Amino acid sequence: MSKGLTKRSEDYSKWYNELVAKADLAENSEVRGCMVIKPYGYAIWEHIQQNLDKMLKETGHQNMYFPTLIPKSFLSKEADHVDGFAKECAVVTHYRLRTSEDGGVEVDPNAKLEEEMILRPTSETTIWNTYRGWIQSYRDLPLLYNQWANVFRWEMRTRIFLRTSEFLWQEGHTAHATAHEALAETKKVLGLYTKLTEDLMAIPMIQGIKTENERFAGAEETFCIEALMQDNKALQAGTSHFLGQNFAKAFDVQYTSKEGKLEHVWASSWGVSTRLMGALIMSHSDDQGLVLPPNIAPDQVVIVPIYKGEDQLAEISEHAEKLMTELRAKGIRVKFDDRDTHRPGWKFAEYEMKGVPVRLAIGMRDLEKGLMEIARRDTGEKESVEVANVVGRVEALIAEIQKNLFDKAKKHQEDNTHSVDTFDEFKKIIKKDGGFVHAHWDGTVETEKKIKELTGATIRCIPLDSKEEAGECILTGKPSKQKVLFAKAY
Amino acid sequence: MSKGLTKRSEDYSKWYNELVAKADLAENSEVRGCMVIKPYGYAIWEHIQQNLDKMLKETGHQNMYFPTLIPKSFLSKEADHVDGFAKECAVVTHYRLRTSEDGGVEVDPNAKLEEEMILRPTSETTIWNTYRGWIQSYRDLPLLYNQWANVFRWEMRTRIFLRTSEFLWQEGHTAHATAHEALAETKKVLGLYTKLTEDLMAIPMIQGIKTENERFAGAEETFCIEALMQDNKALQAGTSHFLGQNFAKAFDVQYTSKEGKLEHVWASSWGVSTRLMGALIMSHSDDQGLVLPPNIAPDQVVIVPIYKGEDQLAEISEHAEKLMTELRAKGIRVKFDDRDTHRPGWKFAEYEMKGVPVRLAIGMRDLEKGLMEIARRDTGEKESVEVANVVGRVEALIAEIQKNLFDKAKKHQEDNTHSVDTFDEFKKIIKKDGGFVHAHWDGTVETEKKIKELTGATIRCIPLDSKEEAGECILTGKPSKQKVLFAKAY
Repeated sequence: MSKGLTKRSEDYSKWYNELVAKADLAENSEVRGCMVIKPYGYAIWEHIQQNLDKMLKETGHQNMYFPTLIPKSFLSKEADHVDGFAKECAVVTHYRLRTSEDGGVEVDPNAKLEEEMILRPTSETTIWNTYRGWIQSYRDLPLLYNQWANVFRWEMRTRIFLRTSEFLWQEGHTAHATAHEALAETKKVLGLYTKLTEDLMAIPMIQGIKTENERFAGAEETFCIEALMQDNKALQAGTSHFLGQNFAKAFDVQYTSKEGKLEHVWASSWGVSTRLMGALIMSHSDDQGLVLPPNIAPDQVVIVPIYKGEDQLAEISEHAEKLMTELRAKGIRVKFDDRDTHRPGWKFAEYEMKGVPVRLAIGMRDLEKGLMEIARRDTGEKESVEVANVVGRVEALIAEIQKNLFDKAKKHQEDNTHSVDTFDEFKKIIKKDGGFVHAHWDGTVETEKKIKELTGATIRCIPLDSKEEAGECILTGKPSKQKVLFAKAY
Repeated sequence: MSKGLTKRSEDYSKWYNELVAKADLAENSEVRGCMVIKPYGYAIWEHIQQNLDKMLKETGHQNMYFPTLIPKSFLSKEADHVDGFAKECAVVTHYRLRTSEDGGVEVDPNAKLEEEMILRPTSETTIWNTYRGWIQSYRDLPLLYNQWANVFRWEMRTRIFLRTSEFLWQEGHTAHATAHEALAETKKVLGLYTKLTEDLMAIPMIQGIKTENERFAGAEETFCIEALMQDNKALQAGTSHFLGQNFAKAFDVQYTSKEGKLEHVWASSWGVSTRLMGALIMSHSDDQGLVLPPNIAPDQVVIVPIYKGEDQLAEISEHAEKLMTELRAKGIRVKFDDRDTHRPGWKFAEYEMKGVPVRLAIGMRDLEKGLMEIARRDTGEKESVEVANVVGRVEALIAEIQKNLFDKAKKHQEDNTHSVDTFDEFKKIIKKDGGFVHAHWDGTVETEKKIKELTGATIRCIPLDSKEEAGECILTGKPSKQKVLFAKAY
């Protein structure tokens, strides 16, 4: 374990890249913009997946799987959708390679596809083209389906987890008989996303609605959750779209209602992705490395033995095994690192870098006094605890750490949320400290773009809990009904 | 639920296609050779996944994720590998579409990739190219990593689940310090695959080694599990490859041994795929539809209420809820279908088609006598059981059905396994009844190909439990050390 990260205060972006590498989360692949998710990073993603999958199933959703390849022509069936996605698509044009004269391989020019295909950037088109065959009557509705999949968007500037040419996500695609039901579903899933990110990942969220300019290509309304990172830039963590009848009309999906009338189907779609890994890192981690909330940590507790010789290790192992049995009985994920290839100090540094919430050191000198040492990752505090009390203390600590991380992130969000009335104030805050800024806006795409051009800040959302309050747009002075939430964003 | 499948005895292939559609497992997509896996089919796949993933984790494996796109040049680095996979690759050549004059979209000719990329047909090349950076010392070994992913092979003749242009699978890629360890890993995983397919999916397997001709492109030795389908064609259900040092040499992956020497790393790779869904269907199902072994069934028990009016439904529901609580406490997966949109008869037909192992009907007339009706899917038998005994009876039935399905499939396999000494006998059996045929073979690729040409049968494997026994090749009369296993195959 090579030590030492760049300090966050020196270069946040460098710190992030070093942490991703040194905590063994992921690395860039040889394919531009694509990442390799390493086993430790993937284990965290699996915990996010399993938790969300459970929530989705408990609310009546089922998984399915659609092909990665989408015929080029599908993309242009929904007018807004094509503008949003056509530009950044990977395109498959051929289906065979052949041996070249130099002994390598080359594309076989005789194996050209009749119609080119794109790698899904999102699957509304192919799914709604298929739903046409699945929906005839109101009896077939709702469809509450989801898929876990890889998607592709050819990004120019990429950053591991935050913006990559290929990423992993889930995409839900639901079909309903009424607008009311589809909208209720859209909001319900936004609630699940909030629960996932706040309760499990300890990241406080602002729920809101996107402006027209930031709306999903093909949606009537896009709901989102937005988080504030440690460097005071915002990160969109999940979106849930009310699609109206747009895709049903584009792909001719109709159903016969109870009253015998033919109607177009209403839809929602929603997704979260491996981007959440970036949000997790930038919400809690520190200059020593990753900090994981216990609810999402692959290992919540690691036990490190401190020993000389086989006999001591045997005795410590016995204690460790007993502890593990008791901790596991309480549903706690614990690992015993008895590798003899590395010294305790090296292991301490590794688990600090990897953000394991609780470290338990068992050494002979402590044991003779009936003690074990417990260290918590979030504050770095250590304490000696009597052997009999260790299980109880660890259990309490796990809850404490989870709460502490959320509270700390919440305080950071609150401390860095401003409300302004003039463009001067706005510019000053965005330039100097960053953070969330509530401000009046005249409701036009033009003004939104102009503010971005002048300051780099975008409208993250119109918060769901924002009050109507008459005012004047900070840029144009035109009337505004409510303040909206601005920030510079990832 | 539209009724009536083609009988297996009439047209096995038609029966298969109809079953896949009517049991709601999957359907062909508009992209040639790709399938849509529908929620019910995907739920079965999830059970296969979860069971195997658990086994892999219990044996020390971790998951990770590598990019789908592989630079074309990687493919030609391992000499045998390129011959095996270059021919059937989907190739990405461009990264952008643009609006065409007719208002549709077209490939932007200015957005051509410098190096074309292929969609992974398997990931040895990209993974070993990366392992070079992960392995320096013996301390870094072994790497026991796996990924769940989609892969692409441009197949000419496709068939849902059995041979599709995109399919889902897991691919394990392990790295070891010694040949012995790598070979032990190869065999260990073959054992896990056997456990998965036999114990959970109730499909009896023959474990064996592939001949040179059927070996994975780039492997030193390919181990496999082979099953016999109801129509007496064989199906390769999983493979585990001992890769020797081939990929380590092709991608220059070396480690420093304990003794300080630089050595090439030893490797294994192994996979099972959604093809297992085809094996499952063709092992147990009947003319009435799918038959699922309880261990792999998403719903092991379905409860159907038979009632008139809300009052009766309320009373029956109370019984159903109580039963479900008790069954779930025993780990049994149970569903209560109280939809009022369909009649009991329709539901019976649906669950028969979908292969739910146990159906429980609760009707008022039975209840008054203190009885419920239990039907088992595998034999179609029904029995009336006293309410107090229902939980116990269901639990016993689940074990009985699991065992019965395995025994039945095992008997079919044994009844259709032959041993011959002449080519005439061989041809007769292969042509008339099919099945597995043990026969002597002279060990040459040439003879193997000739036999295939003449009869359609291939060598499925050299069974691990086959005894050495001198004999003469059925085709050439040349000496042979042991019989090998032939069959026509999917």
